[in-house]
Amino acid sequence: MTKGFPTQEFQTRVAKAQARMVTQGLDALLLTTEPDVRYFTGYLTRFWESPCRPWFLVIPTAGDPIAVIPSIGAVLMARTWITDIRTWRAPDLDDDGVSLLADTLRQLGPRIGTPSGIQSHLRMPLDDFARLNAALPQPIGADGGIVQTLRLVKSDAEIEKIRAACQIANRAFLRTPEIARAGVPLERVYRDFQRLCLDEGADWVPYLAGSAAPGGYGDVISPADDRPLAVGDVLMLDTGLVHDGYFCDFDRNFAVGNVGAEVNIAHSTLIDATHAAFATARPGATAADLFHVMDKIVTGGAGGSDTGRYGHGLGMNLTEWPSLIPTDHTPLAKGMVLTLEPGIEIAPGMALVHEENIVISETGAEWLSKPYGHVMTRLSI
Amino acid sequence: MTKGFPTQEFQTRVAKAQARMVTQGLDALLLTTEPDVRYFTGYLTRFWESPCRPWFLVIPTAGDPIAVIPSIGAVLMARTWITDIRTWRAPDLDDDGVSLLADTLRQLGPRIGTPSGIQSHLRMPLDDFARLNAALPQPIGADGGIVQTLRLVKSDAEIEKIRAACQIANRAFLRTPEIARAGVPLERVYRDFQRLCLDEGADWVPYLAGSAAPGGYGDVISPADDRPLAVGDVLMLDTGLVHDGYFCDFDRNFAVGNVGAEVNIAHSTLIDATHAAFATARPGATAADLFHVMDKIVTGGAGGSDTGRYGHGLGMNLTEWPSLIPTDHTPLAKGMVLTLEPGIEIAPGMALVHEENIVISETGAEWLSKPYGHVMTRLSI
Repeated sequence: MTKGFPTQEFQTRVAKAQARMVTQGLDALLLTTEPDVRYFTGYLTRFWESPCRPWFLVIPTAGDPIAVIPSIGAVLMARTWITDIRTWRAPDLDDDGVSLLADTLRQLGPRIGTPSGIQSHLRMPLDDFARLNAALPQPIGADGGIVQTLRLVKSDAEIEKIRAACQIANRAFLRTPEIARAGVPLERVYRDFQRLCLDEGADWVPYLAGSAAPGGYGDVISPADDRPLAVGDVLMLDTGLVHDGYFCDFDRNFAVGNVGAEVNIAHSTLIDATHAAFATARPGATAADLFHVMDKIVTGGAGGSDTGRYGHGLGMNLTEWPSLIPTDHTPLAKGMVLTLEPGIEIAPGMALVHEENIVISETGAEWLSKPYGHVMTRLSI
Repeated sequence: MTKGFPTQEFQTRVAKAQARMVTQGLDALLLTTEPDVRYFTGYLTRFWESPCRPWFLVIPTAGDPIAVIPSIGAVLMARTWITDIRTWRAPDLDDDGVSLLADTLRQLGPRIGTPSGIQSHLRMPLDDFARLNAALPQPIGADGGIVQTLRLVKSDAEIEKIRAACQIANRAFLRTPEIARAGVPLERVYRDFQRLCLDEGADWVPYLAGSAAPGGYGDVISPADDRPLAVGDVLMLDTGLVHDGYFCDFDRNFAVGNVGAEVNIAHSTLIDATHAAFATARPGATAADLFHVMDKIVTGGAGGSDTGRYGHGLGMNLTEWPSLIPTDHTPLAKGMVLTLEPGIEIAPGMALVHEENIVISETGAEWLSKPYGHVMTRLSI
């Protein structure tokens, strides 16, 4: 599959943002985070792992975006479709790009917006943000959800990248019996599962969590410990691997020998719940609708548990908008990519979770992950 | 090696922060980022990869820290030494922890500080930060560099974790000839190098960058492409892998057959530069001193290049304070962990970089990475 996107795709994204900016009366958008900058430029690097340097992208109401970035990124940014690249030698302890950015923004007008709603953050120091605002005719305000609205619906090319990520994870999950069996410490399983993901084609593996315990697990976000898998454990592995800048995010449960009827029934119920949500998912249904259809199956409609939601958006981030919760009434639309992630309580503090990935089509939904069966894969004992 | 830290270590960190808070007249610190929260709690999870949920840690001037977090994290946080854990069901589209956090902060006093200097950011939506400030008697201000000052100097236990990370990378680099030779696409080398890191004991591999080209490379932050390694290429791999929450960050150059005298000389010069910096590194010398001693060797004292610095701090982040640049006069102190990372221009736009990791001792410095020789390891052709 070709890496990246044709320039036309970025131009379309920018044009859509600009149309909304005009409607909202904004003169420019200021973007500071990895996915937001990449969404409009194609600038893909793991260098964002370094928190020392800020990076800025400015989108005017007309014309192409302007990159205001540390000079170490100039060569790579010049390989994207962006031509107006303004750099400074970072880190600069006195002026870390602030005056260069302020000059850029002042030329575009006083009304600047930046993402400020749920799931957003400003990736620059607060002191520098205050200095920037002081150098502008009026303080930077909200972007009115423009970036969120655009990123919420994926293009066909984006969907193909997420699909490829899911297929890589599908293959890694199929090979899990090679690396996980009774007696293998969970830490070793985590390392080897990441190796399987890379072997099957992941570019990198930013997320792996899971659990292994008899009768369900108390927590799904812990790092691995050195406890060996034991007969009767249910092992859950949840991965977010990356292919060409796009994530998958789904999990699988495995039975280490006989896990008992309660766990098997709980697992089967979760599979039913994801299929029910899949059948409900279509343009016009809401995020909350998917929550309720799953919640009816897993709790009888009690409203879920305190710990989470039953799924979420997926794309350049491991988790995106919307949330499958009772209060999120986002209407689903063709091109939205979602996780279906119901959880079920087996005993107080002991739960099971299951997750699949889907994309909303014109008339319904399509699986991106290969849906798991009612019966868990059994690992050797 | 034992994972995590004894409670005493966290109590010491908190006590040091509290002493500085009293001096600066702060009633509480508000922390929002993964390393800052983990530094005072030991809360270690890859779940931060999900940007949907904010996490807060509040440090009062007396008593233990208070965690204000999504309920999905309660079980794991309860396994740390933190006992005051206040949760909400996140994401909450109406009030995503803001009122719970405001209530917590109001009980502690009006003067709240949060990290706001270089390398920091606030990991919560700007809209919510505005709501939070509006619910407090006075706006949240700066932390006066308290967290940076503390994290700058590593404890013996932290140094052992970084040393272990470096040793894992040492072993992976030694095995590079197993996976890289003429004809292997760079993408495959990247995947397989990450697998080697995992195989040698990395928990995960958040950072891998590099380059391969004849005569040097134009860029050190690009993702891999599918170009096969060719005879005459110099291959550079730069990894930041994680062991128990701590990074290493160093690179190695490899010769694919004969890379030519200019590249060999440049590499040898870089090795000389890191050794000169190592000999200079001791308590009382400054970050700028290390820059100048390396710059004298690689450019004759021209002041480095526009693209970067000659090294930086290292720890819970891939890159930390200080920066080895002419304007950073941070005095080195026992326990600071640094990268030495000189770069040299071979031809316009063609450079070579080399990187080692060291820790400042009482009387000098100690290598954490096993220093590379003047002659690059040769890969098969």
